[in-house]
Amino acid sequence: MNYSSTFIPTLREVPADAVIASHRLMFRSGMIRKLANGLFAYLPLGLRSFRKVEQIVREEMDAIGALEMKPTVVLPGEIWKESGRWDAMGEGMLRAKNRLDNDFVISPTAEEAFTAIVRDELSSYRQLPLTLYQINTKFRDEIRPRYGVMRGREFVMKDAYSWHGNDESLDETYQAMGRAYRRIFKRCGLTVIPVKADSGAMGGSGSEEFMVESDIGDNTLILCANGDYAANVEKAGCAPDYEVQPSPESAVIPPIEKIDTPDVKTIDELCAFLKTKPQTFIKTLIYRAANVELDLSAAPCAQGEPGCKNLERKKGDTAVYPEVFCAVALRGDLDVNEAKLAALLKAGEVSLAADADVIRLTNAPVGFAGPVGLNSLPVIVDHSVTAMNDAVTGALAKDLHYRHVAYGRDFSGWMTGDIRTVKAGDRCPLCGGGLYEKKGNELGHIFKLGYKYTRSMKVSYLDENGKSQMPTMGCYGIGLDRALASVIEEHHDEAGIVWPASVAPYHVIIVPIKYDGAVKAACDRLAADFEKAGIEVLLDDRDERPGVKFNDADLTGIPWRVVVGDKGLAQSPAQVEIKRRGEQETRMVELDKAAQELELKVKEALAELDGEL
Amino acid sequence: MNYSSTFIPTLREVPADAVIASHRLMFRSGMIRKLANGLFAYLPLGLRSFRKVEQIVREEMDAIGALEMKPTVVLPGEIWKESGRWDAMGEGMLRAKNRLDNDFVISPTAEEAFTAIVRDELSSYRQLPLTLYQINTKFRDEIRPRYGVMRGREFVMKDAYSWHGNDESLDETYQAMGRAYRRIFKRCGLTVIPVKADSGAMGGSGSEEFMVESDIGDNTLILCANGDYAANVEKAGCAPDYEVQPSPESAVIPPIEKIDTPDVKTIDELCAFLKTKPQTFIKTLIYRAANVELDLSAAPCAQGEPGCKNLERKKGDTAVYPEVFCAVALRGDLDVNEAKLAALLKAGEVSLAADADVIRLTNAPVGFAGPVGLNSLPVIVDHSVTAMNDAVTGALAKDLHYRHVAYGRDFSGWMTGDIRTVKAGDRCPLCGGGLYEKKGNELGHIFKLGYKYTRSMKVSYLDENGKSQMPTMGCYGIGLDRALASVIEEHHDEAGIVWPASVAPYHVIIVPIKYDGAVKAACDRLAADFEKAGIEVLLDDRDERPGVKFNDADLTGIPWRVVVGDKGLAQSPAQVEIKRRGEQETRMVELDKAAQELELKVKEALAELDGEL
Repeated sequence: MNYSSTFIPTLREVPADAVIASHRLMFRSGMIRKLANGLFAYLPLGLRSFRKVEQIVREEMDAIGALEMKPTVVLPGEIWKESGRWDAMGEGMLRAKNRLDNDFVISPTAEEAFTAIVRDELSSYRQLPLTLYQINTKFRDEIRPRYGVMRGREFVMKDAYSWHGNDESLDETYQAMGRAYRRIFKRCGLTVIPVKADSGAMGGSGSEEFMVESDIGDNTLILCANGDYAANVEKAGCAPDYEVQPSPESAVIPPIEKIDTPDVKTIDELCAFLKTKPQTFIKTLIYRAANVELDLSAAPCAQGEPGCKNLERKKGDTAVYPEVFCAVALRGDLDVNEAKLAALLKAGEVSLAADADVIRLTNAPVGFAGPVGLNSLPVIVDHSVTAMNDAVTGALAKDLHYRHVAYGRDFSGWMTGDIRTVKAGDRCPLCGGGLYEKKGNELGHIFKLGYKYTRSMKVSYLDENGKSQMPTMGCYGIGLDRALASVIEEHHDEAGIVWPASVAPYHVIIVPIKYDGAVKAACDRLAADFEKAGIEVLLDDRDERPGVKFNDADLTGIPWRVVVGDKGLAQSPAQVEIKRRGEQETRMVELDKAAQELELKVKEALAELDGEL
Repeated sequence: MNYSSTFIPTLREVPADAVIASHRLMFRSGMIRKLANGLFAYLPLGLRSFRKVEQIVREEMDAIGALEMKPTVVLPGEIWKESGRWDAMGEGMLRAKNRLDNDFVISPTAEEAFTAIVRDELSSYRQLPLTLYQINTKFRDEIRPRYGVMRGREFVMKDAYSWHGNDESLDETYQAMGRAYRRIFKRCGLTVIPVKADSGAMGGSGSEEFMVESDIGDNTLILCANGDYAANVEKAGCAPDYEVQPSPESAVIPPIEKIDTPDVKTIDELCAFLKTKPQTFIKTLIYRAANVELDLSAAPCAQGEPGCKNLERKKGDTAVYPEVFCAVALRGDLDVNEAKLAALLKAGEVSLAADADVIRLTNAPVGFAGPVGLNSLPVIVDHSVTAMNDAVTGALAKDLHYRHVAYGRDFSGWMTGDIRTVKAGDRCPLCGGGLYEKKGNELGHIFKLGYKYTRSMKVSYLDENGKSQMPTMGCYGIGLDRALASVIEEHHDEAGIVWPASVAPYHVIIVPIKYDGAVKAACDRLAADFEKAGIEVLLDDRDERPGVKFNDADLTGIPWRVVVGDKGLAQSPAQVEIKRRGEQETRMVELDKAAQELELKVKEALAELDGEL
């Protein structure tokens, strides 16, 4: 392809809102243009790279037996009402009504569409397992779209869905997807961190997120310095840290004792008052939880409180408590991880209770809650507290605290669980190594959905014994635009993009010093030779200064640059200059051997990216 | 691919709304499923054929230098307001508002999006001509979506747009597109009728529609029996038909004469009264035209009528008359073609005037209008009238007509033009041959847009002399879903689809009589041989009766069927049966030579479709 025959409007300047490298470079290199906030058009150069990511994803999906199909982008509102997500998806889902008052959804994801189709066609266990996927347009109305295609409103997602007769089969596909995802990212030249993730609004359990490190990432990752642990902070655990306990277990702990703490409410004030550290306190917080699925029938409940007794059938076929209050006890230096708390309670949402509720439920002013004698609501005890045997905590009365409090002796709560926020400096739950934090962006997510959609949308099949069964489901997504932008985040320098060969828009760029006479003839022949060898080549035939052409070659990041000039051609045999993007070294090679040599190099580079994990 | 590893839910029954062959067969063969009225999902088998059409379109666009890009499907409302089409597109365009009250459009077409991008990047004449295209999702809210993907709400369109410095350049690209379209349809195995078309709501002039014959077509085509003329009835012309004139030109025509015609208003009544034929009458109709661009400054206009004097700037930068009345005179046996009348007046819309307006403007009761002495509004004379020299027409007064009326002697009107509806039996404007009618469906449309969008969206570039100029535009669409359905309409029989090799989901289907033992081994080897040769093969490994498998092979329409059974394998050398879909003949060929022979046949079939036009 000749440069002048394509449409690559490169730029020196970038808009002020392009704050990350990929946004800046995609814009400057003429890969994308903005149509509106969060809506980007791929220009020809950008589309070439985009299609390569798409093709890599497609090949790896096909390789594990997933079957591509194509539902519509505009989906009927009815199926979203059936699944219950018409309400649950909130304002991030773009809806439209036509002249006949039909409700439509611009697909943000497609569990409903795929499930609706499979429901009608699934009859026998012999059709299972079944994995279907699409690579198609999605729309999510980000409130603050930014960072170019990294967080746009419209994007393309590969979303796959699988149906299974049993958990083992689901796990097999889930594992195969995990391997396919690792291969996809490797082939794109991406370094991903696979992490355990909270599966969030999607429901279900058993999930893995594929993250790339990013300063502007939405997610906080907890990683072990020894490399054996990685988790989203929303789900991260850590090793118990008994060494920070105030007293050795063997010591004799004095009996619990009530002490006056006039005007002392915060942990800092207590520390100053008692001349000790936050690690010796048991912090107790009152939470309100909505749509709780956990069985609370045996939990304590205050007289007259609707709370745990008020079980309702609300979400599809699942019994939930619409509103429940609970107390959470954890060590004074730690924070509650609300995502983990919500997961423990199987709650739709958790938030700190209002002051009025705290006062009513603890029968004390705010600041004096404590687990000892708290019988009006379920107390959830974090694992950090179970090792505390000489602690200070609120005494459920104004200006009073307890000291010498021991878990198991003075209180035990209603249940124990891991609800603390893990942070840098905590210890790895696997090896005890030091944990550190990174910001990350999610590129892909695989998870076991279970029966969420097959139950709400009433999917069934006949098993080996002719009995009707409900299949279990998995769900697997990759954001293509974000993956492409992440490749650039990982592979660029001051001068521009440094494409991995697999997703480069072209493999080779030919830069004539001046596209004329013998140089033109040599360039044209070289380009023809490359094309014959299956090498994608861009010939910069523009009437521009060599400096402009070199800058654009660096900016667009094409892996190999071939410079053709009169001087080199005048040698015997004629020579051209070859340079790998991202390296400083240039080399002169014989004109007649250049195509053959670069063909080999391109194939080697592709093979390396395509190689074993 | 093994049949049991894919997802091809074939059916015996079809829904009652599947009234045309392609809808029925796409449904029965498991190519598509309905998600909602007008919304269809392509299942894996359907998507394979769909992608082949897509790839053929892409190759032919690339071959003429068009550059693929990808704007969003969800477009910002702003650019539609800029072009003026936010209002003009009406309710067929699906709109959505997000939480921030931003207006969005689900792309029904993309003139605005492409023009907005080019506007920002176009600076110099050296960038022209430029042709960009996308193959992407479109949505049009058909009031009555039907016939499956032939007329769905969501569909995929290839839409290309070109920009040019002058009309010659536009014409070059327009002609190249026309050739590319012919190649696309030929490669798909489609017989198209290229017709001159009214470019309708898209604006501009110079356009060609690519039609396929269809009983359920939206369009009426006028075709010449000699094969040299084809036009959409909305634009069709015909040869003048002087032979139906009442008097030879050489005869002496008596002077015009007023006659009493008491209670005679309709042409039928006049015929009975005067004992003559409708061909001798001049029918005069009063029309109301809206948003007229034609220069009417010199046209007659009644005292006190705003009409033609009321020129307003309304549509972008174009001067229009918001409302104009005119009279139309044509031979009594003919009908006015309102599309042609609108095109002649460059009007947004034309419709018959209300009775009150007719009475006011003609100063006579309804039924007595005539062109003689009609000076209160512009009279447009159809070509059919210009040859009439002894006609009857209304005398602009109750119960009075004129006879012996001669065009040019007794009246001449304000302008002449071709505004009659051509119909079967009229004569070809090129060769005089008999014209006949057909119903057709539009698969593609190419047209010269002119300055419509570059003017309203203010696109400019600097020409060779550094002077700012506005580029002219072309616009070129193909509906992919409709093209695919039309292939099936043209290639099917009682038993199912009969795919042309180029768009068949697979080239070869292997049907084992029983997939077991030596038959299984032979089938597996044969499938591997096909795949090695680049032949796409489906192996029906299901545990079904041979009859079921034969039926599904016919239904899915795969071009070559290879049947492998014990009997054939027992021969020496081992034999398999080969059959071409759509033919009756079966042939036994050596197992060892089957792959090689079919490879040759597939390649021959593809080459034939790909051959010269």
